[in-house]
Amino acid sequence: MANILILGAGVMGTALAVPASDNGHAVVLAGTPLDDAVVAHMQASGGTHPKLDAPLPGTVRVIADAEMTAQDTDRADLIVVGVSSPGIAWAVDRLNGLLRRETTVAFVTKGLDRKDGAVVTFAETVPERVSRLGTFIGIGGPCIARELALRLPTASVYAARDKADAERAATLFRTPYYRLAASDDLTGVEACAALKNFFAIGVSAMQTRYPDARRADGQSKNPTAAAFTQAVHEMATLCERIGGARSTAFDLAGLGDLHVTVGGGRNSRLGHSLGRDRTVEEAMAQDLANETVEGIDTARVVASLLGAVRLQANGRDAVEFPLAQAIIDAVLGNALFDFDFEDLPTPANAS
Amino acid sequence: MANILILGAGVMGTALAVPASDNGHAVVLAGTPLDDAVVAHMQASGGTHPKLDAPLPGTVRVIADAEMTAQDTDRADLIVVGVSSPGIAWAVDRLNGLLRRETTVAFVTKGLDRKDGAVVTFAETVPERVSRLGTFIGIGGPCIARELALRLPTASVYAARDKADAERAATLFRTPYYRLAASDDLTGVEACAALKNFFAIGVSAMQTRYPDARRADGQSKNPTAAAFTQAVHEMATLCERIGGARSTAFDLAGLGDLHVTVGGGRNSRLGHSLGRDRTVEEAMAQDLANETVEGIDTARVVASLLGAVRLQANGRDAVEFPLAQAIIDAVLGNALFDFDFEDLPTPANAS
Repeated sequence: MANILILGAGVMGTALAVPASDNGHAVVLAGTPLDDAVVAHMQASGGTHPKLDAPLPGTVRVIADAEMTAQDTDRADLIVVGVSSPGIAWAVDRLNGLLRRETTVAFVTKGLDRKDGAVVTFAETVPERVSRLGTFIGIGGPCIARELALRLPTASVYAARDKADAERAATLFRTPYYRLAASDDLTGVEACAALKNFFAIGVSAMQTRYPDARRADGQSKNPTAAAFTQAVHEMATLCERIGGARSTAFDLAGLGDLHVTVGGGRNSRLGHSLGRDRTVEEAMAQDLANETVEGIDTARVVASLLGAVRLQANGRDAVEFPLAQAIIDAVLGNALFDFDFEDLPTPANAS
Repeated sequence: MANILILGAGVMGTALAVPASDNGHAVVLAGTPLDDAVVAHMQASGGTHPKLDAPLPGTVRVIADAEMTAQDTDRADLIVVGVSSPGIAWAVDRLNGLLRRETTVAFVTKGLDRKDGAVVTFAETVPERVSRLGTFIGIGGPCIARELALRLPTASVYAARDKADAERAATLFRTPYYRLAASDDLTGVEACAALKNFFAIGVSAMQTRYPDARRADGQSKNPTAAAFTQAVHEMATLCERIGGARSTAFDLAGLGDLHVTVGGGRNSRLGHSLGRDRTVEEAMAQDLANETVEGIDTARVVASLLGAVRLQANGRDAVEFPLAQAIIDAVLGNALFDFDFEDLPTPANAS
């Protein structure tokens, strides 16, 4: 039995308590200050998160931010940071205040960052911000939290610089319904987990851009399948530029997570609006009022990665990343989404 | 302007007449004997195929099998074989009877075959059966014929042993809405095009096996995304065993075509039935009565490729191809579909 401390009682942090607890580990789930109401609800309701359908196993201890002490971190064999990207500063502060020895920390939080002029992942910037962070574990792959909490079959990948560390962490969480691969491409897993939000906007836009009234879901299929393929290839090249392995984009953290992100969630809903010829400003004012769309932040970083930021589509220049460029033009330039297949390169079949 | 002869007035053969004709080529669309009623309908209706929503351009000449002569093949710069796999024998006979000089032939028809004990594609067996077949072109990628005929954005790949031949053929068909890559991995494109029908059965089964009443489409997402990723990787390894390149499975003919095939068509409908705990016999007697499901034929060949054909799931042996094995057990063994995530390997992140 191990002791696992999860920081953040959002849906993903909470869902990870299920396999950890099913494996017989002692799990403490600590909310952020923003989670106080959720924590109170869970404490009063026998562990049912308001956005999840199933209660947590009774062995999970749910506490509010104010209740968490250094004893909780002292005991922890592994800490999970389960906050979304705006919460990373809170997690860094809390870890710096509480950690009294080097501890392994697994991050669900994803985002791209800049460091010394280069685009990097949290795996390159967070460790130096947390003084006693032992091993950094990145968690990627196609996982909707609600489905994991329901114990539906889910596959994910745990990554660390040393694959043995990744496998050690994965062993704590792996169950018959939560199948975990281990990878030493930490940067690649982190990069793909952030990039998939960005590309999901573009692929989802193709789902609504060419409607097909003869299908139950109203969507044509050829444009989306082509855009999905193009997205995976552009993600592979960008992953490589960030320092990850191409192959990671062709596995769970890349095409797998992109698959699950298209058609569900806020990035996809933004894409669906763009596909219906709304601008990003219109979409954010209407369908997505008061919501954070992580793929928009990623778009800013991808734009700097591409070098030439064309904020408006001005003519049909040959571009190396036609789908990324179309997303950037729409999301940062507030232009209509226009992914023209004439911009597709005539590529070799090599991936 | 080139002369293009299309053999087979099925949906795909007919749809290919649209971009060819839009490019200004003279197109003759010749039905098989089974297409006589379709040809009569098209001749009477100004070129509207009963299963397509748009009429053909008026310049396309539609003729019945009996009207086709050696003059048509003499004139053709390129012939397209657009029949489904059961029609390949007819196409071979007709080509042998009509061809008076070496001619390039592009094949939409896909299937796996056996030759000297090995599993091969039509690219390895058809050329020696057609005495004047010049260059063999394989066409792959995510393309629903009805959508191509409607000129919706579609990407595909044309393959030949020599990439310049593939590019020459692609040039005849490439339009702003029909974007074509060229590949020299003919065997890989042919292998993936056949394998995707088989794997679409398994991925589609996961769409119905774990329903989610809270979604509009009633489907959970984690199990399908994991199965999709697993399918692409198993397809890559099988593609390699057949003599193709792994990378082809990660491109349009592989993951792209799998994407479009899951959720539409007969292979997918069989998968949906299997996911609802029907046996293949029940599915073929009910949902798919009197229909041909190409993935079932492919399952027989894949079973021989895997070496050990376990027609019944007897225990949880470690298997290299857990998804392929689950499909084979269900489709050839008439067992309930049982793709247990416990059978997933804990793979490296390499593709």
